[in-house]
Amino acid sequence: MLNQPANLDLMYQALADPTRRAMLERLTRGPASVSQLAEPFAMSLPAVVQHLQVLEGSGLVKTEKIGRVRTCTLDTTTMQQAEQWINDRRTAWGKRLDRLADFLGED
Amino acid sequence: MLNQPANLDLMYQALADPTRRAMLERLTRGPASVSQLAEPFAMSLPAVVQHLQVLEGSGLVKTEKIGRVRTCTLDTTTMQQAEQWINDRRTAWGKRLDRLADFLGED
Repeated sequence: MLNQPANLDLMYQALADPTRRAMLERLTRGPASVSQLAEPFAMSLPAVVQHLQVLEGSGLVKTEKIGRVRTCTLDTTTMQQAEQWINDRRTAWGKRLDRLADFLGED
Repeated sequence: MLNQPANLDLMYQALADPTRRAMLERLTRGPASVSQLAEPFAMSLPAVVQHLQVLEGSGLVKTEKIGRVRTCTLDTTTMQQAEQWINDRRTAWGKRLDRLADFLGED
């Protein structure tokens, strides 16, 4: 619909949960293994893995398994896309308001 | 959790749907009545109103009823909050990568 990439659905869905946002927050401090990522949460490892799968499916997080350890990293390119969509709409509307203000301010 | 405003859940949930994003897109071109907003969609008016309620609940859209017409407007302040959260995390992680690059580039 309206030429929007389909994965915006998945990105915003992933961001709409406080646990997943806290996991993203943790990853801004550097890559983490799944168990490091799970540490601060009072939930089972399978529950954490489920949240991680949503984040990975959205593209906001990349994971790589080396040996027995899966390491998670933020994908800032995807984050930028999620940010950009909002920014574009917000500024388009802001510019219209500015033009209206200019028009009303004219003599 | 982690000092995040609760309404980020509602904002990202509202953004996670292509119809609701198309409605926001429409509102960047100016305020619209509910029926104007419904026009491009092949769905019932109650379905449109339901999407609108999600947008209003998230704070991304404000509505005002004057007489029999309800007018919908974008709320750019809320949009900026949704954008800001992503931006802050993305740039925090970007800065860490820059510092790492500086460190690796040192003689």
